[in-house]
Amino acid sequence: MNSYLDCIPCFFSQALRAARIATNDEATHKRILDRIAQMVKIISLEDSPPKVAGMIYRIIAEETNNPDPYKHIKRDFTRRALDLLPSLRKQVLSSDEPMMTAIRYAITGNIIDFGPTESFNMEKALDNALLMKFGICDYETFREHALRSKKTLYIGDNAGETVFDRLLIEQLDSDVTYAVRNNPVINDATIEDAREAGLDEAATIMSSGCDAPGIILEECSRDFRDEFESADLVIAKGQGNYESLSDVTRPMFFLLKAKCAIIARDLGITNGDIVLKGINAQQRMV
Amino acid sequence: MNSYLDCIPCFFSQALRAARIATNDEATHKRILDRIAQMVKIISLEDSPPKVAGMIYRIIAEETNNPDPYKHIKRDFTRRALDLLPSLRKQVLSSDEPMMTAIRYAITGNIIDFGPTESFNMEKALDNALLMKFGICDYETFREHALRSKKTLYIGDNAGETVFDRLLIEQLDSDVTYAVRNNPVINDATIEDAREAGLDEAATIMSSGCDAPGIILEECSRDFRDEFESADLVIAKGQGNYESLSDVTRPMFFLLKAKCAIIARDLGITNGDIVLKGINAQQRMV
Repeated sequence: MNSYLDCIPCFFSQALRAARIATNDEATHKRILDRIAQMVKIISLEDSPPKVAGMIYRIIAEETNNPDPYKHIKRDFTRRALDLLPSLRKQVLSSDEPMMTAIRYAITGNIIDFGPTESFNMEKALDNALLMKFGICDYETFREHALRSKKTLYIGDNAGETVFDRLLIEQLDSDVTYAVRNNPVINDATIEDAREAGLDEAATIMSSGCDAPGIILEECSRDFRDEFESADLVIAKGQGNYESLSDVTRPMFFLLKAKCAIIARDLGITNGDIVLKGINAQQRMV
Repeated sequence: MNSYLDCIPCFFSQALRAARIATNDEATHKRILDRIAQMVKIISLEDSPPKVAGMIYRIIAEETNNPDPYKHIKRDFTRRALDLLPSLRKQVLSSDEPMMTAIRYAITGNIIDFGPTESFNMEKALDNALLMKFGICDYETFREHALRSKKTLYIGDNAGETVFDRLLIEQLDSDVTYAVRNNPVINDATIEDAREAGLDEAATIMSSGCDAPGIILEECSRDFRDEFESADLVIAKGQGNYESLSDVTRPMFFLLKAKCAIIARDLGITNGDIVLKGINAQQRMV
């Protein structure tokens, strides 16, 4: 997905929010906005929003000398999510359609996103998870691909959300590789964050090799690209992964909650809807 | 009121919205954002938001060769407001406290603002006008000043809102000068817009001499500043006039609806509240 002009004000809002989390020094906040302003002229709208966001968050890390401003926030959400895991797992296992229930919790976890949104309530969202409205739901196709897959690549998004991804991983009868960001960016999960969430008990954790809050394939490691090409099933969580991978030609599935009007328009849904969308994925009649 | 760093993303959003109203050409929209980005480094946070906004809307007018993008929108709102005027006037005259009812309608008209807000429903807001919550209500002080004033300066804000201002002007037993912007900026009223709203039947219309969407006193005409100094009572409508005049030392009254979190914080109220705020204005016990 390309960037839109509407993303430009949003880049400034996001940067200011992150800058304030990284430091209280207002002069530094202003310097960050000045540097982003200098970037505007060279931003190509051909680039996906995560590619631009990656550059912005590098500026924030440089100017604040704080490579991981969201560290404590990530840890807090992971712990709170882990507290909820046993009861949610019980809900999944006792439901009529465990895979669908796991998908709903995994998507609901995508609300833990400090990029586009200023505030959210994780616990309240989870209470509401089974009632949330799908804007797109390619469940039957997904289920068929999932049942056939022996080798799954699951591309994670935010720290804490990782815990809920595990519920879906547990529904897959497949070897799963769980890919995360190479370095801290916003509150996206890194290898360390995914380990804290216990993902290593359910999957093989790997870095994508990419620092952006998404998957810019040409910036990813050779190992990651091999996984991406050879997996039977690829699942990608969240807006950043959708924005950066929506134009690839291989079959894959996106699970996300739409948190901005631009991505909602791109997907043809209402902002706030949840999404399970397959691309290049045909359902085979059995 | 100073500008805040939070105003910077908002300047870009406002500019994009106005640029799209002025022209459909996306390359022009991008060029406008590029020019605003070049301004960021030289924006002084000591300047009030309307001062910066004035520069931004001048860029939009230059780049689009459209000095009055909101012309048709302004005319439309003025006509719709004029259609409602007789019935609202009846409401005012039959109410227990006509001045207070007129104030409520005048403030509600302040919703017609294409600066900070993307969408609003004027008719629905008017239906709700008598129930809206005051964050600040210095009514007794205002009423006392209003009853004593023989020479009132009323500083207008948006086109269409002008019509509802007339309801309050009709409650004043005073010569009223109604001041408007010198040139089109956003959907703020100019002399032509105020005449279309029939304000010349209730007041003497004058230009402030200032092109910004607010009152930058040093940019105003000598005539306006004389009025500002000599009036017994000064009423200023809307955020832009508050932002640019909140630090003056003369007594005056602001009537507005808070439409952004920053001004709400500055006023110590909740965003969305309505405000009747006196500054430097003592209530004299009679």
